[in-house]
Amino acid sequence: MEPWKLTAAEALTQIQADKLLVQEYARSLLERVNERDKDVQAWAYLDEETIMRQAKSLDEVPKKNRGPLHGLPIAVKDVIYTRDMPTQFNSPLYEGHFPETDAASIRILRHAGALIFGMYSLIILLPQTDTSGKTTTTQFAAIHIGPKTHNPHDLLRTPGGSSSGSGAAVADFQVPIALGTQTGGSLIRPASFNGIYGFKPTWNAVSREGQKIYALLYDTLGWYGRCVEDIILLADVFALEDDEEEAPRFHGVEGARFAICKTVVWPMAGPGTQEAISRAADLLRSHGAIVEDIELPSEFDNLPEWYRIGLHTEGRTAFLPEYRVGKNQIGQVLIEHVENADKFTRKTQLEAFDNMARLRPVFDEIASQYAAVITPSVPDEATVGLESTGSHIFCSMWSGLHTPVLNVPGFKGDNDMPIGLSLVAPRYRDRHLLEVGKAVGEIFQVEGGWETKLP
Amino acid sequence: MEPWKLTAAEALTQIQADKLLVQEYARSLLERVNERDKDVQAWAYLDEETIMRQAKSLDEVPKKNRGPLHGLPIAVKDVIYTRDMPTQFNSPLYEGHFPETDAASIRILRHAGALIFGMYSLIILLPQTDTSGKTTTTQFAAIHIGPKTHNPHDLLRTPGGSSSGSGAAVADFQVPIALGTQTGGSLIRPASFNGIYGFKPTWNAVSREGQKIYALLYDTLGWYGRCVEDIILLADVFALEDDEEEAPRFHGVEGARFAICKTVVWPMAGPGTQEAISRAADLLRSHGAIVEDIELPSEFDNLPEWYRIGLHTEGRTAFLPEYRVGKNQIGQVLIEHVENADKFTRKTQLEAFDNMARLRPVFDEIASQYAAVITPSVPDEATVGLESTGSHIFCSMWSGLHTPVLNVPGFKGDNDMPIGLSLVAPRYRDRHLLEVGKAVGEIFQVEGGWETKLP
Repeated sequence: MEPWKLTAAEALTQIQADKLLVQEYARSLLERVNERDKDVQAWAYLDEETIMRQAKSLDEVPKKNRGPLHGLPIAVKDVIYTRDMPTQFNSPLYEGHFPETDAASIRILRHAGALIFGMYSLIILLPQTDTSGKTTTTQFAAIHIGPKTHNPHDLLRTPGGSSSGSGAAVADFQVPIALGTQTGGSLIRPASFNGIYGFKPTWNAVSREGQKIYALLYDTLGWYGRCVEDIILLADVFALEDDEEEAPRFHGVEGARFAICKTVVWPMAGPGTQEAISRAADLLRSHGAIVEDIELPSEFDNLPEWYRIGLHTEGRTAFLPEYRVGKNQIGQVLIEHVENADKFTRKTQLEAFDNMARLRPVFDEIASQYAAVITPSVPDEATVGLESTGSHIFCSMWSGLHTPVLNVPGFKGDNDMPIGLSLVAPRYRDRHLLEVGKAVGEIFQVEGGWETKLP
Repeated sequence: MEPWKLTAAEALTQIQADKLLVQEYARSLLERVNERDKDVQAWAYLDEETIMRQAKSLDEVPKKNRGPLHGLPIAVKDVIYTRDMPTQFNSPLYEGHFPETDAASIRILRHAGALIFGMYSLIILLPQTDTSGKTTTTQFAAIHIGPKTHNPHDLLRTPGGSSSGSGAAVADFQVPIALGTQTGGSLIRPASFNGIYGFKPTWNAVSREGQKIYALLYDTLGWYGRCVEDIILLADVFALEDDEEEAPRFHGVEGARFAICKTVVWPMAGPGTQEAISRAADLLRSHGAIVEDIELPSEFDNLPEWYRIGLHTEGRTAFLPEYRVGKNQIGQVLIEHVENADKFTRKTQLEAFDNMARLRPVFDEIASQYAAVITPSVPDEATVGLESTGSHIFCSMWSGLHTPVLNVPGFKGDNDMPIGLSLVAPRYRDRHLLEVGKAVGEIFQVEGGWETKLP
């Protein structure tokens, strides 16, 4: 098998067994990138020469000094500072912006031996792209000004956003794993649209130092992979830890209890998502699980609006510098945040902030009764056109509640495009959720009806 | 009067009236620095040549293009990214660390025309210091490994921390205003120890993008000045806004209601702080205010412990990179955070997080009955020795409650060192608090018993 087809876990095993050099692996992925980039256009910055030099260096590291991710290439979203790449937020205001520092996440990854895919160089090797391993992002991780990236499963469709490039690059086998960030739905939506796993850990379980801020209250660093094992590799390196004694323990789908939570925004669900939810329940039942429909207490109905108030009012703080420095170069939505176009009072802002806080332990208590809460990731499959990256309406409430969320792929829409579902757990039950997601994913991926035609 | 003696507001007026060039002002401050630095040692990095070049550039800006802080020098704490200065956190792990980007706060200040005091150069002009405009900070804005900075009012004493250098530099007339950050008490304690105003705005009212994180839940950027007018200049530029209709309006100390809140940690107050609180109440009453002692509901007694749990568990996330990369080069306290030496469970962590959240609106409601809540800033005056920068015990609960806090100087301890008191208001009543602090400060500074012998 060509190395670029490997999952991260498979590649690691081969590297550790001396069956694969980091250089061979990187070269193989770069070949895949070069073959596909003119169509998918996932990259904002990628420098082959530096990648290969670093790969060579990694091959020279004595075995006893190697970290747990030794040689694993990872794509980084263009809102995360990386000392050897520009971080330009897809914004003319930040053209040439080159912070010579690593975000906390990058420090941890480098120390673990990961190969940050896209390194410092002024040489641009991909002729199809204006710049060249940072994946593209919608401007300021906001969802309103789309990047050039196409959905690898159908080039006419959006890959979702704002972590567009990361999701597309992982789905398209250009890189095994990627970092993304989510404020509203920027990790989970692209995962669903691209048919891969996307994991948003508990808020603040992973440091977000060295990233652009949209809303401090929601912004979360997370990960993409084509299997849960690959995400678990990252959960290890980022030291995610649940409480040990936390009950109920999960012992496989059979006999486990799942909740189906359609949420107050269920009327937004199209036929693809409706079918996916229904099929998921049937599949889990057929594997011996107990599946219950639950309705959250009525106060949860306010979550989408409270989320929106939080987003806009936090955006008022976050985008003041860009507004001051170059108002004419930022999107209208960001201008409206800073100008408080909604005229939200501080009282309204604080009520939303405090009410979301109040519901967090309430949801944790509800969710702790189940192996996972299953809920839509998106309204439906990815739409045609790159202008809109889709809606975060099914994701944002979990951002507000700070819970871990895992998008599990396996279903499909009317146009054979992938649809995933979100598995949600109480805060700081990240490891538990990954364990459940692994078991559930094995069922959804085999029996859900969708499988990737790539590569 | 020599320019370095001016407040920021006075200097601005003179610059705007063409009575003072930015260059003259900067030169004058540099002379003050050069005279005093061997004793006070407030600076981690200061490059006279770049400062003077930027000052000259500012003088050349046409009047119509000038920002609201045009020509105003400001000191920056060494945990805030500045594109033309290293940001080294006073840590060997970050020696030579030079993120070529501006934090959100620096972008806003530069655009307003401020002169970031300490600019990119490899020339070190201050022979007494190993490096030379960033003010020194205790390591990672933590309070445990002290910097070299001395209290300008008594060189044998600590200036407090972690915003040590900023507080000392402002008190010592080396710069009119400064940026600081507070996790526990790092803005308010140095303000009290140095006899100046220190303002911690409402949490997340000001962007903290581009700063080192200690605890996302508490970290707040704030400001130092020798008068409230100077802090109001910064509040304008950073767009702090209260709700307009918020009651009760403040019309001066006479007839206003104040609460004295000694808090559960009152037994930690030494004679200086006890006397300051008592004298503050007497002074306000003598000026016609209604002053009431209040006791917060008993659940507030848990705040110091909840704060501590939040600090340690967030530190577990924040310092993972440094722990991984160079465990032997970070302080024991940080190691203990990452290793969770306290063995806090996630359950305990979330209870502290959620309970603090629950008390925020409760405190807002209580505080809204008063012009301000008055409470200690510190146990007592600054102690002898630089090893300990003092206790945050009187500050940390307000960090947990996200309220704005203003340290107002004017009182003194047994050794004639300054002691300030904290004025606290509900969240997002920042402008109100500054207005009250201005009126109260005029009384405390004239009649409180302490005044600076500097310069």
